[in-house]
Amino acid sequence: MLGSTHGTFTTDLRARVVACGESPRTTVHGVTAAPGDQDVSGRPLHAPVPDLDRFFRPESVAVVGASDAEGRPNTGITRQLLAWAERVGARLVPVHPTRTSVFGIDCVPSVGALTEPVDLAVLLVADPLPVIEELAETKVRFAVAFASGFAETGEAGAAAQERLAAAVRRSGIRLLGPNTNLNAFERFREDLEGPAVALITQSGHQGRPVFTLQELGVRLSHWAPTGNEADLETSDFISYFAGRPEVGAIACYVEGLKDGRSFLLAADRAARHGVPVVAVKVGRTETGARTAASHTGKLTGADQVVDAAMRQYGVIRVDGLDQLQDTATLLARARRPHADGVVVYSISGGTGAHFADLATAAGLELPTLPQAKQDELHQWIPEYLSVSNPVDNGGHPVGDWRGRKIIDAILADPSVGVLICPITGPFPPMSDKLAQDLVEAAEATDKLVCVVWGSPVGTEDAYRTTLLGSSRVATFRTFANCIGAVKAYLDHHRFTTGYRSPFDEAPRTPSPSFRKAQALMRPGRRLSEHAAKQLLRAYGIRVPREQLVTSAAAAVRAAGLVGYPVVMKASGAQLAHKTELGLVKVGLTSASQVRDAYRELTEIARFESIDLDGILVCQMVGRGVEMVVGVTRDELFGPTVTVGLGGVLVEVLNDTAVRVPPFGEREARSMLAELRGRALLDGVRGAPPADVDALVEVVLRVQRMALELDGDLAELDINPLMVLPRGQGAVALDALAVCR
Amino acid sequence: MLGSTHGTFTTDLRARVVACGESPRTTVHGVTAAPGDQDVSGRPLHAPVPDLDRFFRPESVAVVGASDAEGRPNTGITRQLLAWAERVGARLVPVHPTRTSVFGIDCVPSVGALTEPVDLAVLLVADPLPVIEELAETKVRFAVAFASGFAETGEAGAAAQERLAAAVRRSGIRLLGPNTNLNAFERFREDLEGPAVALITQSGHQGRPVFTLQELGVRLSHWAPTGNEADLETSDFISYFAGRPEVGAIACYVEGLKDGRSFLLAADRAARHGVPVVAVKVGRTETGARTAASHTGKLTGADQVVDAAMRQYGVIRVDGLDQLQDTATLLARARRPHADGVVVYSISGGTGAHFADLATAAGLELPTLPQAKQDELHQWIPEYLSVSNPVDNGGHPVGDWRGRKIIDAILADPSVGVLICPITGPFPPMSDKLAQDLVEAAEATDKLVCVVWGSPVGTEDAYRTTLLGSSRVATFRTFANCIGAVKAYLDHHRFTTGYRSPFDEAPRTPSPSFRKAQALMRPGRRLSEHAAKQLLRAYGIRVPREQLVTSAAAAVRAAGLVGYPVVMKASGAQLAHKTELGLVKVGLTSASQVRDAYRELTEIARFESIDLDGILVCQMVGRGVEMVVGVTRDELFGPTVTVGLGGVLVEVLNDTAVRVPPFGEREARSMLAELRGRALLDGVRGAPPADVDALVEVVLRVQRMALELDGDLAELDINPLMVLPRGQGAVALDALAVCR
Repeated sequence: MLGSTHGTFTTDLRARVVACGESPRTTVHGVTAAPGDQDVSGRPLHAPVPDLDRFFRPESVAVVGASDAEGRPNTGITRQLLAWAERVGARLVPVHPTRTSVFGIDCVPSVGALTEPVDLAVLLVADPLPVIEELAETKVRFAVAFASGFAETGEAGAAAQERLAAAVRRSGIRLLGPNTNLNAFERFREDLEGPAVALITQSGHQGRPVFTLQELGVRLSHWAPTGNEADLETSDFISYFAGRPEVGAIACYVEGLKDGRSFLLAADRAARHGVPVVAVKVGRTETGARTAASHTGKLTGADQVVDAAMRQYGVIRVDGLDQLQDTATLLARARRPHADGVVVYSISGGTGAHFADLATAAGLELPTLPQAKQDELHQWIPEYLSVSNPVDNGGHPVGDWRGRKIIDAILADPSVGVLICPITGPFPPMSDKLAQDLVEAAEATDKLVCVVWGSPVGTEDAYRTTLLGSSRVATFRTFANCIGAVKAYLDHHRFTTGYRSPFDEAPRTPSPSFRKAQALMRPGRRLSEHAAKQLLRAYGIRVPREQLVTSAAAAVRAAGLVGYPVVMKASGAQLAHKTELGLVKVGLTSASQVRDAYRELTEIARFESIDLDGILVCQMVGRGVEMVVGVTRDELFGPTVTVGLGGVLVEVLNDTAVRVPPFGEREARSMLAELRGRALLDGVRGAPPADVDALVEVVLRVQRMALELDGDLAELDINPLMVLPRGQGAVALDALAVCR
Repeated sequence: MLGSTHGTFTTDLRARVVACGESPRTTVHGVTAAPGDQDVSGRPLHAPVPDLDRFFRPESVAVVGASDAEGRPNTGITRQLLAWAERVGARLVPVHPTRTSVFGIDCVPSVGALTEPVDLAVLLVADPLPVIEELAETKVRFAVAFASGFAETGEAGAAAQERLAAAVRRSGIRLLGPNTNLNAFERFREDLEGPAVALITQSGHQGRPVFTLQELGVRLSHWAPTGNEADLETSDFISYFAGRPEVGAIACYVEGLKDGRSFLLAADRAARHGVPVVAVKVGRTETGARTAASHTGKLTGADQVVDAAMRQYGVIRVDGLDQLQDTATLLARARRPHADGVVVYSISGGTGAHFADLATAAGLELPTLPQAKQDELHQWIPEYLSVSNPVDNGGHPVGDWRGRKIIDAILADPSVGVLICPITGPFPPMSDKLAQDLVEAAEATDKLVCVVWGSPVGTEDAYRTTLLGSSRVATFRTFANCIGAVKAYLDHHRFTTGYRSPFDEAPRTPSPSFRKAQALMRPGRRLSEHAAKQLLRAYGIRVPREQLVTSAAAAVRAAGLVGYPVVMKASGAQLAHKTELGLVKVGLTSASQVRDAYRELTEIARFESIDLDGILVCQMVGRGVEMVVGVTRDELFGPTVTVGLGGVLVEVLNDTAVRVPPFGEREARSMLAELRGRALLDGVRGAPPADVDALVEVVLRVQRMALELDGDLAELDINPLMVLPRGQGAVALDALAVCR
């Protein structure tokens, strides 16, 4: 079922899938799929969710290599594991070949000597491979390997990791690591309530700030430090956390991914559950990608593609760990918005103006409050101050009973979904009362109340006690982080409200076009323009009427059939830069011009030693907007579909949008909205609006082609696709196709 | 000397300049200029620097409206002023019509009764106008008016403010306010040493976070809360602070400016002194601009122009108050960089990869350390960790003697100007020692050492005591703010190193072109294409050979003189959209084609009822890159010069760059570098590189025209300017000019 055509799986993954097929526990592994569970490219449409309950809350834990000898690193780890086991109520069994007891607990000499089922084995040994093989004999469900020296150290390490991964697959055990750490077994505060943040990181140090949020009152439920991901990977934890009732948001620090599809399926599951996933993903730049790859031995993927894939599934990508903290916390705690309107409320007109400026620039919507509401606010706020939004109270009213009235009145307006109060300068007589009022008002509403505590000091009582003491007020330290998080919050709920999984609608069986198209493929070669256009035609994409001819007389006959005026082009498999070489003649209106053109084109080709398969005589197509539509392959995600503005624009500005299949019409339309030169499609300088529907249809047909021909097609480039005025369609004037 | 042609001054300012001319103390006011001190547009080339020493450190202060009556607001203010006067060693004289003493100090009954010279009068009265008139009789140098209800409240308030400003101008006193506050008289920590931040704000609340930095050990020298700026304005304080030896950087919060030129002259002075100016400037969006305008009653200016003007004079614009704090602090304290290279040093490969990714994306340069340096670092850092940059020490070496060795070794490399150590997770055994080592290493070097303390808690000892206790280490809380500040630091020093003031080279007298051009002007009207092109020709800008004709026979003669092929266009003063109306004929190769074209063009014009002044017969110009170059007027800065990509690009993408005159060739070239479609000028798709030198020359000539014709020219638009291949020049194919 997984043949050689499904080349987007990495070698590693392919081996693993096959191995899973032989295992009695295939459903535990994310990427395995029953035949009916694949899209037409052979990629899975469902990922089984690993049941990690017993990993995070085991009843019994074996610690292989446990120690209580002074000065040994394993002693410290054993001590921490003991404390953790006690907290979660797990029985700990030390495993040591020579000791009889560790910290007063009886040891067993080897894994094989374990007499009862063990949920989790923690491997504190330098080489976990033999232990995994031993564990395979027992009923152990999960293992964690701390040892380093695997894929993160280079080729030899990667080979060792592959051997370990193979042993894990044979064993049926799910492994976390190697090269992971104790993060999963840290002390989580039990006294905090409400929706929690679950954390997944590929670096312990990078996860620490999110974990530390507990000290500020933010509930954390889990921490999965995925290490080298020889088995369990980021996607597995996303899938699992998305189904946990205590998890309000998932925060991820990702350097690389093992497999694109697994990640998308996990993000899809989170989107279906309405659980926001907020992620830092390293690899914006070449430097970052290279450094991350050398750090983790994982693929970082083309950043534009990763970025698009995340947006397609509603994953909120942020750049900084501070944004990760602020956004995940807000999204975990805040309820579904009642409205998209944001009101900025401040004790200073300057603060309101500044905040409104930045918020509007970021795309937040600040509705003008209705006149009746403004009149109401002016009961408490002097008449000369503006209360249209931003609401400027001028300071004094916050110090007395009016403060709370104002906040409640704003929150009561139906256009308001979010109230943001930036307090840049702490002035206790005002700001302490204001903070208290905001906290109390937030308790009494479902709407989101945000505060920016702008003091750089951050030890003030109003901040530490009043604001951080409330889980209903979202407290920030900077305007930018507040604005980013609120934008993500509103976007997330808009996204999940209308969410329809593209996997539900992905094609599972080839279309009738597939056989026609396959017959045109020439493995490892580039198709001639004529053949590439036949490929497009097979998928219902319009190309100009054209004939391939090999004599001047045939050219004249063809022109008669195609209809004057015609375009003539040299056609050959290895032919690029036709225009620059003078191998395109346009606007030919007579038989004599056609004959002359035929002669000239063949002479140029002879002079330049270019092999032709003939001369194309093509219909002249009317003026429209030149676009490009193409397929390229990403190392993580397989085939991707790109659309962009054609002509010189695509070369100079690279004004393109990309999507990872499968995606529907809405995404295809949103690709166009991303283009900076989008207005060209609406018609500028008196040009008519272009046939956007036809363009969208081409994008979707190209996607279908990309999926069905996944094993055969390395690259496709329609350039230009002439998008004619509305109602007149779109025509592929030239195309390039490279077979795998 | 300042005639009606100098229309960029607002009415307010014009009145003021004239008034200053009548005053015996003209040199105190920023915008006054002796005749030789003006550029050719009549704008000043120098701004006298107000001597504010006695404002900030007066020997005697009169408090008009002083009170010690319980419950009166003036009592609190008087108390604060007393405390301040004591701190700065000033004698305080209460002025009150009925009381004999306030807080035990003898009162004088009125300003007129003051018997000795007073440096500063603080006006705690609701209407400061009559007091200003009284003060004019005394020797008072400075006044501060706290009263509100002026320009910030609307039209009536603006008129009251204008009356106040007029009284101030007559008086010769310099006024801070109205609508200002006590910020200038706050308690500044005297125990902090080294270069200080001077603060200027148009909102007290918005200045508070920067002021509060003192609690984190950052020295603040001044705070100027400029209020409504009826007299003293942001620019005056920038000019003054730029010359103060204790000021290391100037931090500004700006909502609007009174006058563009004053601001540029102040920024120029700061650039000459090498004093960095960091500014938040509200007005990125329409919402922000509107809100700010209603808050302050000031002009916000077109944001693209403000942005360009700031960059021209090296003003560092930031968006958030947090960035203002971090960037100003770093720039105040850090010494001139030895090199531009940034090394990222961390205890986690993940942190290094993440930071490097963001830093590189922001344009910082992370040089690969030389092999010898890497070998040196590998003495202390395990071989399998990457030390090329980022330097990943894996954690352990920071805990012992190796930690300091590593830091010193990195700092010793000549390519390194900045060492950044992001500590995302505090782990005291490592991070405390690391922080201490960094502080000690920073004391021993001139190079910049930065730390990002990533813990969200911020109460840790290593942060509060060790790091914030050092003025040599620049400590940040987020990657983004560190990266932004370091980028600003390196950019600032690069900018000031090569700084040549454009005011030194600004034209002072009209060029010979001026008279020719003036003769073409038609006040209040739009020029015909032909006249507009004559204007360009007057300034040495190439236009096609062309003749304006009014008969078919003359057209044929003209074509013979111009040379075939020719272009023919209808010409008329009110003519726009010629191409859309069919009023342009290109590629005419014979007398008969010219005759036909003449007939057709005049018929269309007749049919469309368009008044023509004739038909232009123009030389056909070869292919090149179409650009636009133009002049528009900004309410703050007067004429500005824009350059952009022509054709559909300028309409769809608005890919333009703008500059405020005067500027030199370097700025003109940097305009081109800003264009997203810049590559078009280098030649794409086999096109030859364009004549960029000729384009730059046109931009500079257009600038000259903008300055010389400032009073006459409302708008100029060369569209397209055809920039021919290198060495062949640039030709203005069409032009639009509107007279004032």
